[in-house]
Amino acid sequence: MINEEALAAARSLDDCCALDANDPLRGLREQFELPEGVIYLDGNSLGVMPRATPERLQAVTREEWGQGLIRSWNSAGWFDLPAKAGNKIARLIGAGAGEVVATDSTSINLFKVLSAALQMQREDAPARRVIVSERDNFPTDLYIAQGLTREHGYTLRLIDDPAELPQALDAEVAVLMLTHVNYRTGAMHDMAEVTSAAHAAGAKVVWDLAHSAGAVPVDLLGAEADFAIGCGYKYLNGGPGAPAFVWAHPQHVDRFWQPLSGWWGHAAPFEFTPDYRPAAGIARYLCGTQSVLGLAALDCGVDTLLAAEPLGGMAALRAKSLALTELFARLVEERCAGHGLALVSPREPERRGSQVCLSHAEGAYAMVQALIARGVIGDFRAGDGVRPDILRFGFTPAYLSFADVWNAVEQLGQVLESGEWRKPEFKQRNAVT
Amino acid sequence: MINEEALAAARSLDDCCALDANDPLRGLREQFELPEGVIYLDGNSLGVMPRATPERLQAVTREEWGQGLIRSWNSAGWFDLPAKAGNKIARLIGAGAGEVVATDSTSINLFKVLSAALQMQREDAPARRVIVSERDNFPTDLYIAQGLTREHGYTLRLIDDPAELPQALDAEVAVLMLTHVNYRTGAMHDMAEVTSAAHAAGAKVVWDLAHSAGAVPVDLLGAEADFAIGCGYKYLNGGPGAPAFVWAHPQHVDRFWQPLSGWWGHAAPFEFTPDYRPAAGIARYLCGTQSVLGLAALDCGVDTLLAAEPLGGMAALRAKSLALTELFARLVEERCAGHGLALVSPREPERRGSQVCLSHAEGAYAMVQALIARGVIGDFRAGDGVRPDILRFGFTPAYLSFADVWNAVEQLGQVLESGEWRKPEFKQRNAVT
Repeated sequence: MINEEALAAARSLDDCCALDANDPLRGLREQFELPEGVIYLDGNSLGVMPRATPERLQAVTREEWGQGLIRSWNSAGWFDLPAKAGNKIARLIGAGAGEVVATDSTSINLFKVLSAALQMQREDAPARRVIVSERDNFPTDLYIAQGLTREHGYTLRLIDDPAELPQALDAEVAVLMLTHVNYRTGAMHDMAEVTSAAHAAGAKVVWDLAHSAGAVPVDLLGAEADFAIGCGYKYLNGGPGAPAFVWAHPQHVDRFWQPLSGWWGHAAPFEFTPDYRPAAGIARYLCGTQSVLGLAALDCGVDTLLAAEPLGGMAALRAKSLALTELFARLVEERCAGHGLALVSPREPERRGSQVCLSHAEGAYAMVQALIARGVIGDFRAGDGVRPDILRFGFTPAYLSFADVWNAVEQLGQVLESGEWRKPEFKQRNAVT
Repeated sequence: MINEEALAAARSLDDCCALDANDPLRGLREQFELPEGVIYLDGNSLGVMPRATPERLQAVTREEWGQGLIRSWNSAGWFDLPAKAGNKIARLIGAGAGEVVATDSTSINLFKVLSAALQMQREDAPARRVIVSERDNFPTDLYIAQGLTREHGYTLRLIDDPAELPQALDAEVAVLMLTHVNYRTGAMHDMAEVTSAAHAAGAKVVWDLAHSAGAVPVDLLGAEADFAIGCGYKYLNGGPGAPAFVWAHPQHVDRFWQPLSGWWGHAAPFEFTPDYRPAAGIARYLCGTQSVLGLAALDCGVDTLLAAEPLGGMAALRAKSLALTELFARLVEERCAGHGLALVSPREPERRGSQVCLSHAEGAYAMVQALIARGVIGDFRAGDGVRPDILRFGFTPAYLSFADVWNAVEQLGQVLESGEWRKPEFKQRNAVT
């Protein structure tokens, strides 16, 4: 349990170390390979490597592939990896066993479920020809929706503020497509409330859990969501470009083909028949042969979260995550006042994911670079005139400590006080994911 | 150079060892990890592991991911891996630099190019509403086509024999979709001739190179093909479920969006703008974030083929492949006569890929199992009443020797003579890929 009074009173590195000493999840950190001299606040972009992963990959290559060769599809369980990893992920997102598969990328999986949701509405409510989303949604989600609207003659309606949702959900809307936790601001939707409102308005709901799975408790079945997809390489620690995951509500899953109807989604893939016949259940959302290396690494990543189950699971991780983000936001206010930083993420805990974003009118990019040079890795997201440039800091409770938060804020304070972020070397822009 | 006379005269293990001693490609075998006691004739299903791969994966995990973390997207070149591996593959298939990317699965890439080809015809020849393929095509290709025909109201027309092609290519045909080398029989189309005939009939051509890339010379630009896709885990040795590849003719590539319009295919992926704007060139066929582990392993796999370039490249590999398959077919005829085996693959070298298939009325499955028990790994493909059950043997010239061919046939001869394939243990069926 987090001691709320000790958290609110923490005003020194020693105070933060005391919080760590009392942190019931402190042992989870040992599962990870954290580089020397780095405070990693970018697990919402790429999670840290579990110590178990390189050895697992050695076994998959040298033994399973190298020695077992083709026989390992059966003997090493390769063919079952999407379901195996999917079942583990299901436990983190309020889905049932057999309802999730790990496969393909988030974008591809979104195409599948959005296609299925639109098909469902073409049968149930063919006059509904609008997809609603947020302009501030992660761009690839909007791009995938645009691919579908072009092919099938739908309209994509983008809102600028969640407050516009009730008005946007009119009788034309087929599907509401939202990312649960906003990738820029960390603002979190109330999944149950929004789903219920969308259903009342006759729309189906597709949730992108890229910044939720493994970061905040999610209850897909409890919220009666229709479809969900999410990312394997952020809070699930599956490694760069890890397979993503996909879920469909059991009451919809057998109703439709998704159009990426490949052989891994066939009811009898080894009969090699010329006609497609979709597998029962979520297996029909598989398509082609999947990366065994990627799935094995994802499996190791998800295991680091399941290790929290005896300690309280996602609820305990969420409590620590909120304590970390609350502490960070407060210390920034106290330590970094007067330098033009503003908090972009919601202050209310129930509306905040596992990240804290700060805006700065002119220096956001350079400040992030100056912090990286000091070993504090966050990231920068550009504004666009309406939205400000932001410094983005992700807090992964499984491997971050309260002392990390203190030290990160101390480094940020020094970057601001020294003015070192104004050096030309920190203004040179590179591609950053 | 293969000594054709010595090849035709080889009638003992010593003769085959002499062929190996004179094989200019014999050194390529050292690049691979071949298990003790195994003769691997299934590289057309899953290629053998290059020795370089496990170390490369250790570097990608322990150094690039473990230490570099998010910084490795730039510093370790992760973002460029699809183009880097794609450029290497381009050299094997007669495509230009910058024309190929390695990404997603074969099925997903087929969906992209088939969608683009159909879009092209909707503009150029909207009355054409038929996709032609072979009933004997690899099933996932047909399944993907079926996903598209359902969504867009096309008809899939399947021929039973390549001889029916001229008649099938009528004025209704939008796209001809073929696998260059048949996955069951090893029969190979003449790419230039078929493409030319299809174009003369007003159809666009999509080639699946799953059993061609790295196995036989391919000249996409020379054949004036329209689109091509292929597999990374067969003759390219990229590992189980390796990323696939995709090519579009330079004259088409910028004409269309493909509908899987994800952020990696955006003209400016790091601007995070809400509107999709496709990248120039083949990069628009990228979609979501790709498996770095999978791409790194694929890169190692393709390198094993590029190592043949100073020795004559694909032409030299093809000459050896034909010598291996010719020797195998002849030795089977001589050593295994009278046991009911029949050659299914074409005898004419120019019509044969890099595999040899045999049919047997009742024992194909059990014979393959009995061979596997003896360390000779081929695979079984079930018949369907029209097509026979087959024993399938793939010959990868980069790591197989003439002595392997001799020993494999000797084992097959013993399996047949002893009748051991009739044992119950070899009739028990498992899923086999």
